[in-house]
Amino acid sequence: MANYNVAPLSKLIEQFERLPGIGSKTAQRLAYFVLNMPKEQATEFSNAIIDAHEKIRYCNVCCNFSDQELCPVCRSHNRDTSVICVVETPRDAIALENTHEYAGVYHVLHGAISPLNGVGPDQLCIKQLLSRLSDDTVKEVIMATNPTVEGEATAMYLSRLLKPMGIKVTRLAYGIPVGGDLEYADEVTLARALEGRNEL
Amino acid sequence: MANYNVAPLSKLIEQFERLPGIGSKTAQRLAYFVLNMPKEQATEFSNAIIDAHEKIRYCNVCCNFSDQELCPVCRSHNRDTSVICVVETPRDAIALENTHEYAGVYHVLHGAISPLNGVGPDQLCIKQLLSRLSDDTVKEVIMATNPTVEGEATAMYLSRLLKPMGIKVTRLAYGIPVGGDLEYADEVTLARALEGRNEL
Repeated sequence: MANYNVAPLSKLIEQFERLPGIGSKTAQRLAYFVLNMPKEQATEFSNAIIDAHEKIRYCNVCCNFSDQELCPVCRSHNRDTSVICVVETPRDAIALENTHEYAGVYHVLHGAISPLNGVGPDQLCIKQLLSRLSDDTVKEVIMATNPTVEGEATAMYLSRLLKPMGIKVTRLAYGIPVGGDLEYADEVTLARALEGRNEL
Repeated sequence: MANYNVAPLSKLIEQFERLPGIGSKTAQRLAYFVLNMPKEQATEFSNAIIDAHEKIRYCNVCCNFSDQELCPVCRSHNRDTSVICVVETPRDAIALENTHEYAGVYHVLHGAISPLNGVGPDQLCIKQLLSRLSDDTVKEVIMATNPTVEGEATAMYLSRLLKPMGIKVTRLAYGIPVGGDLEYADEVTLARALEGRNEL
């Protein structure tokens, strides 16, 4: 598609094409949009990319993204530090924050155990999690890894690691999604929903 | 959504949200992807934005994007300069190039007449088109503006301007799209297809 574009434009299109979920048509549309931006906006965009890379680091405690030593959640005095919710990515933590139902703290693994992709426990932020558990403040660790094979494996691995330390390890509930349709729920989900049924 | 993100990340997400067709969820996904890129790739992306802005200008002849005085089409010696295809945007020119059926040259208006949006003939690259027609090399001008109200109005406006100059002005054919389904074609398109029917 980009063959007929001039070099700097083709390059910009290529850059957009690298992004996930952006095909060649969309990349072209975005590149043209950026080209038509006022110059200050384009500079702002360009700087935001560099800034994010230069200023963002892992939180010293929970390994979530942060621009300071501690992330906003770990800095806050209103969070219950006796409960740690273990997630795969920072975006999962944000999804949980958006529920406004969780007052504990997080731990971001930055991935899940996946032997096929060459990701073992050593590539994840598990050491940092263990060091948080060395004093006795933590009472519960909630496994909020994804309901995928990798997420499950990671949750199992961690629970086997933590249970001997006398820490309560829990897992997010499986079931039918709210607003969903029983008819369209897959068998495994439905079976899990049945299994985990609660008294009304 | 971005409330729980640290500042440099929120800023990057905001930048992506400004792009057309990118909602807050996608912007977040893209920002995280950029953050996880190797630093050189992020720098490359950032530079591509600035480069495109600094190096790209309008072609002196056809007003298409170019990184030199003339765009690749106007520079080429294999193009028939007696036919000019008038398009609204550089992307339309690329779409026509991709057909591999057109050997003439282009003229990019950079928009269409749209009184509602405050775009009159003066905001478009019409003067440049007229100056190309001053010598007698151009035999035909093909109106390839979009089949929208604005595109039609622009084509009509230009044809009224050019016809008195003795130049043949043509318009892209209307009809059913190839591979389409008669059943799903709208009435206006179908009526135009009937009107423009050709002998087999």
